[in-house]
Amino acid sequence: MNISKYILANICHPPEYGKVEFINHALIGLDRSGIIQFLLKPTDATYQEKLKQAKKEERLIAFDDSKLILPGFIDLHIHAPQWPQAGVALDSPLYDWLDNCTFPLESKYSNPEFSKEVYNNLVDTLLAHGTTTALYFASANKNTSLSLAKICAKKGQRAFIGKVVMDNPDQTPDYYRDESSQSALLETEDFCKEVEKLAQNTLQGIYPVITPRFIPSCTDSTLKNLGELAQTHNYYVQSHCSESDWEDSYVFNRFGKSDAEMLKSFGLLGPRSIMAHCVKLDTTGANIFAETGTSIAHCPISNAYFANSVLSVAKFQRLGINIGLGSDISGGFSPSIYDNLRQAVIVSRILEDGVDSSLPSEKRGKANSRITLAKAFWHATVGGGQALKLKLGLFKKDYSFDAQVIDLSTLPTYGGFDNQDSLWQKALYLTNSPSIKAVFVQGKKVYQNQL
Amino acid sequence: MNISKYILANICHPPEYGKVEFINHALIGLDRSGIIQFLLKPTDATYQEKLKQAKKEERLIAFDDSKLILPGFIDLHIHAPQWPQAGVALDSPLYDWLDNCTFPLESKYSNPEFSKEVYNNLVDTLLAHGTTTALYFASANKNTSLSLAKICAKKGQRAFIGKVVMDNPDQTPDYYRDESSQSALLETEDFCKEVEKLAQNTLQGIYPVITPRFIPSCTDSTLKNLGELAQTHNYYVQSHCSESDWEDSYVFNRFGKSDAEMLKSFGLLGPRSIMAHCVKLDTTGANIFAETGTSIAHCPISNAYFANSVLSVAKFQRLGINIGLGSDISGGFSPSIYDNLRQAVIVSRILEDGVDSSLPSEKRGKANSRITLAKAFWHATVGGGQALKLKLGLFKKDYSFDAQVIDLSTLPTYGGFDNQDSLWQKALYLTNSPSIKAVFVQGKKVYQNQL
Ligand SMILES: [Zn+2]
Ligand SMILES: [Zn+2]
Repeated sequence: MNISKYILANICHPPEYGKVEFINHALIGLDRSGIIQFLLKPTDATYQEKLKQAKKEERLIAFDDSKLILPGFIDLHIHAPQWPQAGVALDSPLYDWLDNCTFPLESKYSNPEFSKEVYNNLVDTLLAHGTTTALYFASANKNTSLSLAKICAKKGQRAFIGKVVMDNPDQTPDYYRDESSQSALLETEDFCKEVEKLAQNTLQGIYPVITPRFIPSCTDSTLKNLGELAQTHNYYVQSHCSESDWEDSYVFNRFGKSDAEMLKSFGLLGPRSIMAHCVKLDTTGANIFAETGTSIAHCPISNAYFANSVLSVAKFQRLGINIGLGSDISGGFSPSIYDNLRQAVIVSRILEDGVDSSLPSEKRGKANSRITLAKAFWHATVGGGQALKLKLGLFKKDYSFDAQVIDLSTLPTYGGFDNQDSLWQKALYLTNSPSIKAVFVQGKKVYQNQL
Repeated sequence: MNISKYILANICHPPEYGKVEFINHALIGLDRSGIIQFLLKPTDATYQEKLKQAKKEERLIAFDDSKLILPGFIDLHIHAPQWPQAGVALDSPLYDWLDNCTFPLESKYSNPEFSKEVYNNLVDTLLAHGTTTALYFASANKNTSLSLAKICAKKGQRAFIGKVVMDNPDQTPDYYRDESSQSALLETEDFCKEVEKLAQNTLQGIYPVITPRFIPSCTDSTLKNLGELAQTHNYYVQSHCSESDWEDSYVFNRFGKSDAEMLKSFGLLGPRSIMAHCVKLDTTGANIFAETGTSIAHCPISNAYFANSVLSVAKFQRLGINIGLGSDISGGFSPSIYDNLRQAVIVSRILEDGVDSSLPSEKRGKANSRITLAKAFWHATVGGGQALKLKLGLFKKDYSFDAQVIDLSTLPTYGGFDNQDSLWQKALYLTNSPSIKAVFVQGKKVYQNQL
């Protein structure tokens, strides 16, 4: 076994759903590709010998006790071109927000210079917030969507990227629409091939994703074509599903069936499919997700603005559906998966306790809905990795070393008061970008905080 | 009129509930005490003349167009001694969290060194997050509560501080309790006098606050004594009211009346009273608040963990109750009023839309409950100022110049895309501490970001 780099650090990760493991002075060996070959605890038999060897070979990167290493976070749903309007116009209804803000903005991505400026800034921002992997909606413009892929490749972020497809004249504006069902398909095919070419020279992985915006934006033939394309090449698929009252009823009115049923019939669900929101998914829909292995991208901040309800993470998790977290820039305002992880805990408690204080407590909410901080941590890491069918989110043999280095001295930590249990909770609840000192993707440092 | 300092800056504030005013190149004149004497727009007749004078006298502090100046935020509810456990054990029920975490921690504030270490760090942190005024619960220890007052005085934060009173043996632990009802009263009197002495040499204002922890923690005689003390000296009063199902039913079981009715009967409500949470306040209670002029400290993050429901800000605002925002460290994990302002918007929308997606939309939530970002901005500034009966939260004649300087270049802003309307929304939704470059309290710079 050829070890190219050793890491010595206090680490913390969620090895099981709801459990957090904290290991002081873990020794991690990485191969040349940044994949973890071993993780040893100080009590393991070969620990001292390996540590000695690492020092002798001068291949050791050691972090002192003021640092805590967490797995990198996975953002399962983000609209890259919407970054310039993060936080803007969130008091508008979804429909207005799309027509008056989002579509005009996304149409600007025919401009390569503007695209590069925004995408460079966004990827830098995500890395600085500890997001080592992202599943992106780009825009409907193939060329600048490809430029997002190149920027991620260059900056070292693991990225899954889709050129957005939207060809339904009834639900898309003249100035921002695929020319035809045929051109949408051809451009998607081209885009996927070009991303695969780019990926050949990219260590951390850059993947194309079939991306119908959502059912309302697409014609029947396009949805069918994209489903076939995904099946043929085993491509990843992303879209929105059962996001809001409006979307849910639109699909029912057009097809007489639910979003989940229609996405399945178009061949767009499966183990490599990730659907955003799913707040209004009913029991039939949930069973379809569980059977097909489709994952949910839970976007708790965005949902408060546009989904008209709360996703029951606990219920869908019990039904065996895999769930990761998404920022949903710019339906959500925050580029930070930390903020979304916290919001996931918060809304789960609001779902459990209910909102209307005039009702008696037993009638107010939905019992057994809350998720703990440890569970939210799992969704932000392992849940995202499982959605993407990659070994991500844990410090464990064969997993990618994707990591963020938290400087605990920037948090309110006090010797004699704090222990492992309080430290990881503080790291998850109180870290903002200034506390993230460095970020690694597949063993390579991709971000260093200059403070 | 003697102007000691001129400020030239792009400013933004909420002059009316739900309205935001953005003024480019405002010229603000401050007197020696840091009180605003005038604010001129470039179109005002005397603007050029005053600007010339300011430059000639070398008294001008000018901020370029990459900066936006917002009013300082007011934190209406924060437990200073709980800072070391921010973000910890939030998955526990309130009762366990108090007994196993909070009371043991607060009892450590008999130690002056530990107290100073924590309080210094907390006040620095709040200033770095733009909190220029805070209404603090200190601990039951009089001496170290006074040391918090001294630290605020020295660092230049405007502070309202209470020594916590808790003398009910049934609801407080042996190791952390006022010795007797009499000693609780005497220590409170002493504390108030000492803070008033300190305040004489403090420009920005340091105020004592009568602070019964909440009804369950106090005996009847103590509640009555504290009410009389507050009335006699016109002191500020703070406590918790109708926070949760448990608290609400406890008070009803003990007195056969609601929290609001009992607080009123003890003389603890009035224009200088600020009550935290109030989520379960019923119509009778709300009327009592409106009649007495009592304000609510809305703590939306904390409420998700401990209040079992959502505060209807919109309803209580319509009833004429004044509402500010509180971080409620450490029932809430975040020291940032930005985070709480965002959460205030989010939970108001969740209250309006409801949580249970299996219900039809008209049965799910409470209509007319949402508040806009502009309204949340008002609660974080003017609402807090009105609660404290001070001219705070606006850039306006006779108001204190309490301000935070936001570096817009750290936010995703794009020339040709952004306008005033998008800039203030981004500032409120995306600012974290690294974007706050400087903070002023009453004209004096109290924080400078070293980045
Ligand atoms: Zn989306
Ligand atoms: Zn409190």
